[in-house]
Amino acid sequence: MNFSSKLLENAVNEFGKLPGIGQKTALRLVLHLLNQEDAAVERFSDSFIQLKKNIKFCKNCHHISDHEICEICTSPKRDRSLICVVEDSRDVMAIENTQQYNGLYHVLNGLISPIDGIGPSDLTVDLLVNRVKETEVAEIIFALSATMEGDTTIFYLHKRLNDKPLKITTLARGIAFGGEIEYADELTLGRSIATRVPYETSLSR
Amino acid sequence: MNFSSKLLENAVNEFGKLPGIGQKTALRLVLHLLNQEDAAVERFSDSFIQLKKNIKFCKNCHHISDHEICEICTSPKRDRSLICVVEDSRDVMAIENTQQYNGLYHVLNGLISPIDGIGPSDLTVDLLVNRVKETEVAEIIFALSATMEGDTTIFYLHKRLNDKPLKITTLARGIAFGGEIEYADELTLGRSIATRVPYETSLSR
Repeated sequence: MNFSSKLLENAVNEFGKLPGIGQKTALRLVLHLLNQEDAAVERFSDSFIQLKKNIKFCKNCHHISDHEICEICTSPKRDRSLICVVEDSRDVMAIENTQQYNGLYHVLNGLISPIDGIGPSDLTVDLLVNRVKETEVAEIIFALSATMEGDTTIFYLHKRLNDKPLKITTLARGIAFGGEIEYADELTLGRSIATRVPYETSLSR
Repeated sequence: MNFSSKLLENAVNEFGKLPGIGQKTALRLVLHLLNQEDAAVERFSDSFIQLKKNIKFCKNCHHISDHEICEICTSPKRDRSLICVVEDSRDVMAIENTQQYNGLYHVLNGLISPIDGIGPSDLTVDLLVNRVKETEVAEIIFALSATMEGDTTIFYLHKRLNDKPLKITTLARGIAFGGEIEYADELTLGRSIATRVPYETSLSR
């Protein structure tokens, strides 16, 4: 695209680096910003610099936090015998929103992906192993994506944690609530028949 | 959503103010930024502040520019007897990309929209009227959206410019090239039959 201004081009290019934002969307957003007050643009820009500069990751579970230890880890109401292992902080927020879980979390900060050059040492694996060693954990729940990377990560962590007296579980897989049978993918549908549950059990969930 | 950090919540809210960016997308983008280097985040933020602080609008046509008068207005290769009136700078870039137009532009900076409280005084109408008065303009092309607001704006400008010896034209409307007849909306299809052109004319375009 032929920009009439280097400043504009620069701002559009910066926006366009974000995932899922193409050049046309970036231009639309930048022109929207340009129509705002000076103070609003400064607030916008400053919020990211402040975030980047002052954000902390919980020393216990690596969840995004304003403090050294996050609110979930410090809460006395939480069940400390449960750790739910997730890929990133977004998953923590998603699970918190369900209000169905009362244990602690562990944010891996990614998944093992040899193709992207991400190995166990890039993740917070050691932190997790130490937590399991030093605190009384009864169950580890793997809430990771059902992808190659997710499965690889579970396999690796399972091996690392195998010698501890732990219950290791994963999320239930199956047809989504409200999901239509005919639109379910073959794998999910096939598995959900193979792992069918008694009617009474499905009610109690 | 329950954010674990005020800084994160603030950054997500700032992103979420942009048009078409919901809270989930904002969170995804902010977490992406958080994974970047400090310098990259600063470059990102700084690009908007610099843009907002130093950007100029061409004193002649109000197009976004780094200089007092934009490159199009200063170019000696441009046909100064033609002015194409557009809503904003994005339209200038879109038309420039076609490489089919060699005249000047006039950026209105919006459309007349009583429902949004935008009247002629909020736009660069007076600047346009002055340009027509002071320079030798032979034709004004209205390249505005075919909406209520676009039509209202054309109607108003037409009245303001009516006493000048000017040719006033608008963009051709019809079925898009590559567009399928069955998917065209009724109004466009109906009009394009009513305003059908000789086969030879359509070839020469």
